Amino acid sequence: MKHFSSIDQIRDLNQWTKEALELKANPLAFKNLGKNKTIGLLFFNSSLRTRLSTQKAALNLGMNTFVMNVSEDAWGIEFEDGTIMNGTTAEHIKEAAAVISQYCDIIGIRAFPKLEDKSKDESEHILTAFQKYATVPIVSLESSTGHPLQALTDAITINEFTTKKKPKVVLSWAPHPKKLPHAVANSFVKAMQKLDVEFVITNPEGYNLNPEITAETPIFHNQEDAFKDADFVYAKNWCSYENYGEINDVEEDWMITKEKIKDAHFMHCLPVRRNVVVADEVLDSEQSLAIEQSNNRTYAAQLVLKKLLEDV
Amino acid sequence: MKHFSSIDQIRDLNQWTKEALELKANPLAFKNLGKNKTIGLLFFNSSLRTRLSTQKAALNLGMNTFVMNVSEDAWGIEFEDGTIMNGTTAEHIKEAAAVISQYCDIIGIRAFPKLEDKSKDESEHILTAFQKYATVPIVSLESSTGHPLQALTDAITINEFTTKKKPKVVLSWAPHPKKLPHAVANSFVKAMQKLDVEFVITNPEGYNLNPEITAETPIFHNQEDAFKDADFVYAKNWCSYENYGEINDVEEDWMITKEKIKDAHFMHCLPVRRNVVVADEVLDSEQSLAIEQSNNRTYAAQLVLKKLLEDV
Amino acid sequence: MKHFSSIDQIRDLNQWTKEALELKANPLAFKNLGKNKTIGLLFFNSSLRTRLSTQKAALNLGMNTFVMNVSEDAWGIEFEDGTIMNGTTAEHIKEAAAVISQYCDIIGIRAFPKLEDKSKDESEHILTAFQKYATVPIVSLESSTGHPLQALTDAITINEFTTKKKPKVVLSWAPHPKKLPHAVANSFVKAMQKLDVEFVITNPEGYNLNPEITAETPIFHNQEDAFKDADFVYAKNWCSYENYGEINDVEEDWMITKEKIKDAHFMHCLPVRRNVVVADEVLDSEQSLAIEQSNNRTYAAQLVLKKLLEDV
Repeated sequence: MKHFSSIDQIRDLNQWTKEALELKANPLAFKNLGKNKTIGLLFFNSSLRTRLSTQKAALNLGMNTFVMNVSEDAWGIEFEDGTIMNGTTAEHIKEAAAVISQYCDIIGIRAFPKLEDKSKDESEHILTAFQKYATVPIVSLESSTGHPLQALTDAITINEFTTKKKPKVVLSWAPHPKKLPHAVANSFVKAMQKLDVEFVITNPEGYNLNPEITAETPIFHNQEDAFKDADFVYAKNWCSYENYGEINDVEEDWMITKEKIKDAHFMHCLPVRRNVVVADEVLDSEQSLAIEQSNNRTYAAQLVLKKLLEDV
Repeated sequence: MKHFSSIDQIRDLNQWTKEALELKANPLAFKNLGKNKTIGLLFFNSSLRTRLSTQKAALNLGMNTFVMNVSEDAWGIEFEDGTIMNGTTAEHIKEAAAVISQYCDIIGIRAFPKLEDKSKDESEHILTAFQKYATVPIVSLESSTGHPLQALTDAITINEFTTKKKPKVVLSWAPHPKKLPHAVANSFVKAMQKLDVEFVITNPEGYNLNPEITAETPIFHNQEDAFKDADFVYAKNWCSYENYGEINDVEEDWMITKEKIKDAHFMHCLPVRRNVVVADEVLDSEQSLAIEQSNNRTYAAQLVLKKLLEDV
Repeated sequence: MKHFSSIDQIRDLNQWTKEALELKANPLAFKNLGKNKTIGLLFFNSSLRTRLSTQKAALNLGMNTFVMNVSEDAWGIEFEDGTIMNGTTAEHIKEAAAVISQYCDIIGIRAFPKLEDKSKDESEHILTAFQKYATVPIVSLESSTGHPLQALTDAITINEFTTKKKPKVVLSWAPHPKKLPHAVANSFVKAMQKLDVEFVITNPEGYNLNPEITAETPIFHNQEDAFKDADFVYAKNWCSYENYGEINDVEEDWMITKEKIKDAHFMHCLPVRRNVVVADEVLDSEQSLAIEQSNNRTYAAQLVLKKLLEDV
């Protein structure tokens, strides 16, 4: 594995969740693996869980971490080829990526989409530019179209908490005042397609995810039908994919409530807007796995860093 | 000790100052205590001394540190219960505190008061919310109404530099162009009430601190009377407590000068505005302990972290 | 060596480049030298290479690093003596420098000039204030008039890549949309004057550097003449020194192209604006040493820190 940028790269996701849970049981077992190695975490956007869990994962492996909020700490980065750089950007990604590769053994990148230009976002121009011009492994800390560390976390959490051989997992769209990316949902869909679960998606009309990703996964526009006999309900907002970046009117109430999901485990990647995405009653109950998911972020990151370090 | 949020928690302050001075004499004596442990420092406000001295204290104990400027690095945090979060805050303190507890063994919080609503500030809603929802110890790095690490530092410094069995210590209000919190003054008052010192406060009319805190401590509205035979003069500005958050007119000149304090030791928590709070002649002289106080911040923090680590 | 603030302090630059290349060959050879020591990196301005390479250098020596963006993380700093501080600055450099010295064994400072007042910039008031009031060594991470770690890097890189006993090195002014400092150029000139190279400068009329620095070094106003038989071409923009801080009109095209520099090694401190300062064809070719320069930043910093630690 050269880089880690997509859940597609994981051939046997079930096996990876087992390895992650072994790390969770014994987090310091590979404390020497990262000795004298450094990961640079570059944030183009806000981060709490990713910022801290990846640092924690690095520490557990004995690695050092450099953290940078790229836009404030360093220089505006140019991603276009052949530009005459007489505007606001001061450094080209070709240099930035090659330079940072001199100081770090692995580089993590968080770069959200602008949600204005579908083809630009889908080109993953920031992540792929880093992959192209860096000389060390690049780890996605959430890119325009995917959040593979989160999806690995979610698979770990489902395998950790399921009591059934083949649980039913529902990904449900939920309301939100802002337009949000599809990254978490996309990667979650891909992960569920790789696990031995019964998986369905439910979202309002006009909010179908990229059909190339959802593929054969059933999509319900009626939330109640989808939730029937659910073991895990994963809530997430995303903006329209069809009318790219727009927020269409939704008449029904899609907030997750106890009445709707009964005793199913509730999952969310966080941060979550209470009483908009999900009712307090669900998030404050024992059926919520959101905090445990954030805990598993550490072991998802640690597993990926461990595999990259073993390959370096 | 579960959390460290107030000087009230220290039963024998004199004994704590001795232990801190032992750490100062041998800062690396407990270098293994914090091995594989991490402190997260969360700043809602600016910080120089607290930011660096707490990192240094952690290093001396072998701990790792994650530093976050919460507002810029992560998400706007909601502190109200039951809110429908469709506004500007993106994450509830319930999740934020629980999540950060997954990655850190101790969490430090700096959160200043807004000085607009006395009862809200006195509720210490940020600090207490972290205490309520975190699952690891919370350390106050200055909250709305107290700055216990500073007061512990001040007690250490007075015990270190006093040549008398029972020195006279004066806390004096001093001028400042901005409205400042009462936190440092409150905690200093509480600390002095616990030490074997003769302690008086002096401030202009209208600037009395919370009477529940000052209690039996004498308050002079005449600065000259208060400074008579002083061994230590501690200067600090605060806004009005009575007319909460306001800055009343003060006719007399309350700036600390050499003429006023003679040979008394001068103390200040820093940052200090020169020639407004205190004259250059005092701050630049050997009678100023301000720099030594900042040095002792390390050992105050180290003592508190050590006690928390021993209890974890 | 008490502080490191100028290339002038290096008596035998040739010898230093050899020592740096030895560190490059064996970066962890002095991993114990910095044990339990800490460097504080204080940034008043943006930084990518300096920020990361100095952290990396510190790590290689076993040191800890505290990083601060002074303006956002801490308090506005006052540099004037005797000021009545009732304005926007909240802490005087006298306290700031003395306080930080309590927590760090070495302090690095980056502070760019404002390019408005030549005598103020040339006084290096920020750097010299830190040197005056800190009680630990101060390292310049680029100040108003010099960037000695960069110039040391450049000397290392030239000695590493030259195949001639006495190569010809040309410093060429290049276009830029913003007004930039003279610091990098100044230090490069000084470094070249200390190496056994044939060194010339080329810049448009009106852009001569400080004549006290350029001294006997030949200055060509015709770029083509200067580039004749060049082995290394170092490109850098700077604003006018004579009409201090201004950008004079330049009619000729000064951008570095393959046609102009033939097979000479291209050098730049980065960040560089592509197709403004230098054409893609040069920067993307093997003749560019820019990325290798950024790599050598680590060993320049490591050598300076090593020497300071050995003297502490």
